[in-house]
Amino acid sequence: MDHLVEKTIGQEKIFSGKVIDVYVEDVLLPNGQTSKREIVKHPGAVAVLAVTDEEKIVLVRQYRKALDRVLVEIPAGKLEKGEEPIATARRELEEETGYACKVMRPLHSFYTSPGFADELVHVFLAEQLVKKNEEQALDEDEFVDVLEVTLDEALQLIERKEIYDAKTIYAIQYWQLKKALGDLK
Amino acid sequence: MDHLVEKTIGQEKIFSGKVIDVYVEDVLLPNGQTSKREIVKHPGAVAVLAVTDEEKIVLVRQYRKALDRVLVEIPAGKLEKGEEPIATARRELEEETGYACKVMRPLHSFYTSPGFADELVHVFLAEQLVKKNEEQALDEDEFVDVLEVTLDEALQLIERKEIYDAKTIYAIQYWQLKKALGDLK
Repeated sequence: MDHLVEKTIGQEKIFSGKVIDVYVEDVLLPNGQTSKREIVKHPGAVAVLAVTDEEKIVLVRQYRKALDRVLVEIPAGKLEKGEEPIATARRELEEETGYACKVMRPLHSFYTSPGFADELVHVFLAEQLVKKNEEQALDEDEFVDVLEVTLDEALQLIERKEIYDAKTIYAIQYWQLKKALGDLK
Repeated sequence: MDHLVEKTIGQEKIFSGKVIDVYVEDVLLPNGQTSKREIVKHPGAVAVLAVTDEEKIVLVRQYRKALDRVLVEIPAGKLEKGEEPIATARRELEEETGYACKVMRPLHSFYTSPGFADELVHVFLAEQLVKKNEEQALDEDEFVDVLEVTLDEALQLIERKEIYDAKTIYAIQYWQLKKALGDLK
């Protein structure tokens, strides 16, 4: 793969935030020329496709400042340092929706924006849900509505662009495929 | 939705780059408290699930500096100002792979990282491919290998984490679902 690799020959840290850090790197290209790459570092995240015994999908509605709009998404949250993704997944599901689950298993992990960011999202499937808390236990700057929808309703939310993000469209499509093929893995 | 919305009360531009701009906004939360949001602005992108008449999926292998590794992805590229996404999709497919197509239609669009970035990716399905150029016509800082794989081979690339990004895993899963259900839309 040496004919593809770019070597870093300089790095400038532009910004260090609560969530992201931003760097500009000078790179040596495979053809000997140089270029600059803008890079966002992110701690990574988990997301949970949670399905009730009645086959309702548990979703959260929240405002996203980066988009200046409300989105409907599967429950998700950033990885805490030293925390295993599956533990983050259980914690975020319970905090945002009040649900614990008996079964939590990994589906796919993926980089969300490999062109400029290193954010890796681990998606889990949660089944055999148990309502533990009627109240949410959100972060102090987090405001979230919970909804439970059928697969058909979820597909309509995609059609109406209320569901409009990669991890949620992936997760709904996964569930659609699972129902079409039977157990996937 | 007013009980969810965060109002911007201050904005600082941190960085203005070739690809991304970075802002920190002070926001008024629904409960009257304040917080900070870190936001990456991105021009948006297209990605193309291109399938040959022999049902091979056309993929590109390239180095991603943000991850310091090589990934296999569906062909993709940033939107140019004023360019329609479908025109960008045709251009990027031809530049990266040498393929033109008779049929190009939109699948889904999605935000890749709504928690911190406004990047919107438009995914298209390209069929009835015609090889126009044996040579690629890449940007001066772009180095890309082209490969053509069956659906089974693509699923193996996901298993081996050579395919490891949201848009490509979504696209392969879309193709899997299309084959399972027949025409989707």
